[in-house]
Amino acid sequence: MKVVASLAFAAAALASSLPAAAQFAKPEDALKYRQSVMFVMSQHFGRLGSMANGKAPYDAKAAVDSAEVVATLSHLPWPAFGPAYKDLEPSKAKPEIFTEQARFKERNEKLQEATATLVAAAKTSSLDNLKPAFGDTAKACKACHDDFRNQ
Amino acid sequence: MKVVASLAFAAAALASSLPAAAQFAKPEDALKYRQSVMFVMSQHFGRLGSMANGKAPYDAKAAVDSAEVVATLSHLPWPAFGPAYKDLEPSKAKPEIFTEQARFKERNEKLQEATATLVAAAKTSSLDNLKPAFGDTAKACKACHDDFRNQ
Repeated sequence: MKVVASLAFAAAALASSLPAAAQFAKPEDALKYRQSVMFVMSQHFGRLGSMANGKAPYDAKAAVDSAEVVATLSHLPWPAFGPAYKDLEPSKAKPEIFTEQARFKERNEKLQEATATLVAAAKTSSLDNLKPAFGDTAKACKACHDDFRNQ
Repeated sequence: MKVVASLAFAAAALASSLPAAAQFAKPEDALKYRQSVMFVMSQHFGRLGSMANGKAPYDAKAAVDSAEVVATLSHLPWPAFGPAYKDLEPSKAKPEIFTEQARFKERNEKLQEATATLVAAAKTSSLDNLKPAFGDTAKACKACHDDFRNQ
């Protein structure tokens, strides 16, 4: 019953926190959530990079799997960078995320566009198609990290 | 969120499982990976629980989004519980995961079946359909946690 109990607790905690925007029971959950999503995304993106850079054998099916994970996750972390979550530590998030949300959002959307293309490229089962799509996605990652993430 | 956009993904993920060998640069990455996946999955499952238990307003689109995330993630963590990653700390993983991999795998597959049903239920846009599918998925979580996770 512990799972059910903890789920009920999570549900209660969520419900006591307000409307649609407040998705996290505790601010620390937002921090853990965005870092978890980013880590899993980076792992799968790294697998694609290994193939694109010839450091691992090209596996067309594994490439599609990882590209799909990256694309799915590319939609998730942004609400956890909302104004309510700006002073959480330890975090590499720059203050500009919270003062320039429109520009940050634009960068997030660029990533999502790039990952959609990445999935399409992976599905062609051609390493030659995967390589440039990987490169474009890496650029979208970097553009946002350069402006909004401390090194 | 565009998570919904990849309708084929859950089905594709169901038919697939990532190759188990050498996916992590360091053993610690496997630990962080599986814990990150589990945390993100629990957050989205908690959102569904809030709706299923009437503690948050039912939002059909948000329910589909979260169900899709849960279904996608339900395929990911298992290679990170392979024999090479059995002595990593801190972890709630019981030793039985590594000595009873066939039974563990069976539980993982039950979860994947339940989350596929969860997605289908969410897509009907009926809270009455979501509730039992949420309950069945919670049971699949619990069955595995009871046997393979320390409290």
